Amino acid sequence: MRFARGWFVHAAVALCLVVCGTASAARTDPLPSWNEGRNKHAIIDFVGRVTKKGSPDFVPVDARVATFDNDGTLWAEQPMYFQLLFALERVKETARQHPEWKDKEPFSLLLKGDVKGALAGGEHAIGEIVMATHSGMTTDEFDQDVRQWIATARHPETKRKFTEMVYQPMLELLTYLRANGFKTYIVSGGGIDFMRPWAPAIYGIPPDQVVGSSGKLKYDMRDGKPVLIKLPELNFIDDKDGKPIGIQQHIGQHPIAAFGNSDGDQQMLEWATAGPGARFALIVHHDDAKREWAYDRQSHIGQLDKAWDEAVAKGWTVVSMKDDWKTIYPPQKK
Amino acid sequence: MRFARGWFVHAAVALCLVVCGTASAARTDPLPSWNEGRNKHAIIDFVGRVTKKGSPDFVPVDARVATFDNDGTLWAEQPMYFQLLFALERVKETARQHPEWKDKEPFSLLLKGDVKGALAGGEHAIGEIVMATHSGMTTDEFDQDVRQWIATARHPETKRKFTEMVYQPMLELLTYLRANGFKTYIVSGGGIDFMRPWAPAIYGIPPDQVVGSSGKLKYDMRDGKPVLIKLPELNFIDDKDGKPIGIQQHIGQHPIAAFGNSDGDQQMLEWATAGPGARFALIVHHDDAKREWAYDRQSHIGQLDKAWDEAVAKGWTVVSMKDDWKTIYPPQKK
Repeated sequence: MRFARGWFVHAAVALCLVVCGTASAARTDPLPSWNEGRNKHAIIDFVGRVTKKGSPDFVPVDARVATFDNDGTLWAEQPMYFQLLFALERVKETARQHPEWKDKEPFSLLLKGDVKGALAGGEHAIGEIVMATHSGMTTDEFDQDVRQWIATARHPETKRKFTEMVYQPMLELLTYLRANGFKTYIVSGGGIDFMRPWAPAIYGIPPDQVVGSSGKLKYDMRDGKPVLIKLPELNFIDDKDGKPIGIQQHIGQHPIAAFGNSDGDQQMLEWATAGPGARFALIVHHDDAKREWAYDRQSHIGQLDKAWDEAVAKGWTVVSMKDDWKTIYPPQKK
Repeated sequence: MRFARGWFVHAAVALCLVVCGTASAARTDPLPSWNEGRNKHAIIDFVGRVTKKGSPDFVPVDARVATFDNDGTLWAEQPMYFQLLFALERVKETARQHPEWKDKEPFSLLLKGDVKGALAGGEHAIGEIVMATHSGMTTDEFDQDVRQWIATARHPETKRKFTEMVYQPMLELLTYLRANGFKTYIVSGGGIDFMRPWAPAIYGIPPDQVVGSSGKLKYDMRDGKPVLIKLPELNFIDDKDGKPIGIQQHIGQHPIAAFGNSDGDQQMLEWATAGPGARFALIVHHDDAKREWAYDRQSHIGQLDKAWDEAVAKGWTVVSMKDDWKTIYPPQKK
């Protein structure tokens, strides 16, 4: 009885493996939104080499780590980071609890509707806005706030939901890599607590595979129940040099493939391509003013300058959104 | 052709699921090293309730998060934390590069062989020893050092390798939880970079599911190649209040089950049991002087005092190593 069942299991599993393998090979195009050409070929060639047993570039499954920037790489980032749009709305919503904001820039400007004036204060002003709107509550309360906003808020220009401004070709790339045994991670300068509520549903990336910037936390008791309070104090900036550091702290392995779009991703791409064996680095170039936005060396958001030079020098793949992508966003849900 | 293949795949997968499911149910005892009794029953009952579809306590797979302390919970921690034994050996090995240690306590005492005298300086002395031996090198160099030590070093009393001083009943528990869809994490006060090199092989836990204490890192270039340098500066202490914080930062989800052995785990167990639905907290009580060590309220290492009181008050499962475990360590490899 036991022997018979054991045999049956083995036969069924073997059958499944063989058949599934065949079916998978028969799938014609894993990246249907990518135009044929050198860049699409480079991706498929890399995945083929690291997954083919016996290939000199073969990489075992547990070392197939791929890291993706978020803003400008997986979803859009114009006219400003979407997280900043969330923060601006939080300022309006919570203004009543902050009478002191009336006389304090940049908040006073925001409350008068002068967003441009408020943001003219640059990184310092933005830091103040983000800190004020991302602290004081519990992690669970913040999670709920993000979920509510992301479910309803719409982009000022496209009028799409923000989760409908993810890049369809990159969604296909995530799926393709995972189908080939890769573990896919977000490694973003954006807030870790801002991305986690929706990353699983939108990208298929679980919360523990999201690496981002964060504030300090405090363990406390409220009405006899433990909570984590978000403090108005920086913990970690996951940008530039911070990306390899965030990767080490959270993932603890070297990526063998990394995907970005700006100078903030340069060190992550250097780190991913530094090791032995086959490595892959890709930069999304925003050159499609018609279907998305066109910006690079001179942009204040998602500046692509030094990383572009390094990409050319080192032979990293530079994707043209205009030429390489058949479509930008997924079909809109009604 | 396509239809036929599709049907074939579905049939094979369905067959496999049915048969594997049956085979799994037929497995008699998932925890063979646990004696029958209330505690073993509590574990199996909890897993049964959260995995049974239709049960009021059912928890979907992606929310089945279980966190484990390491020292004293998954492996032994006497006569001192194994990581400290590693650090003491590093002091000896690297003394030549540190002539200043000759006149500087606690290093001078260690170099004279007076370990007791050196550690009499308490947490401060231990902090200095760990910091000095865990910084200055690259993360890859440190990884290699740990791998080499763990492969060869032996415990001063049992003469076993340290990886042979993991608890067999807990290995079975890890496997049992994973077989039931749980994602298992280490959440330890120990060094994250110290545990990751061997946790995958020994516990079946990948590097990104290891949460621990850490030092700050610096991204740098050496001979044109990027490296991460371990700095002599604390980044995070993953103990007591730090455990729920480490869980939030790394995992981003509430655990529904947590396993510890000391007051350092109290907040993690509070955090895991705070949410709605079925939750599980377990404390390993070291009460087996004959097969392991016996220590609790008065111990300097792994003190179990306040957490024990809370466990009794809240009905957490307190495991007696003496009574609940048939065996302590796995069979020794020759």
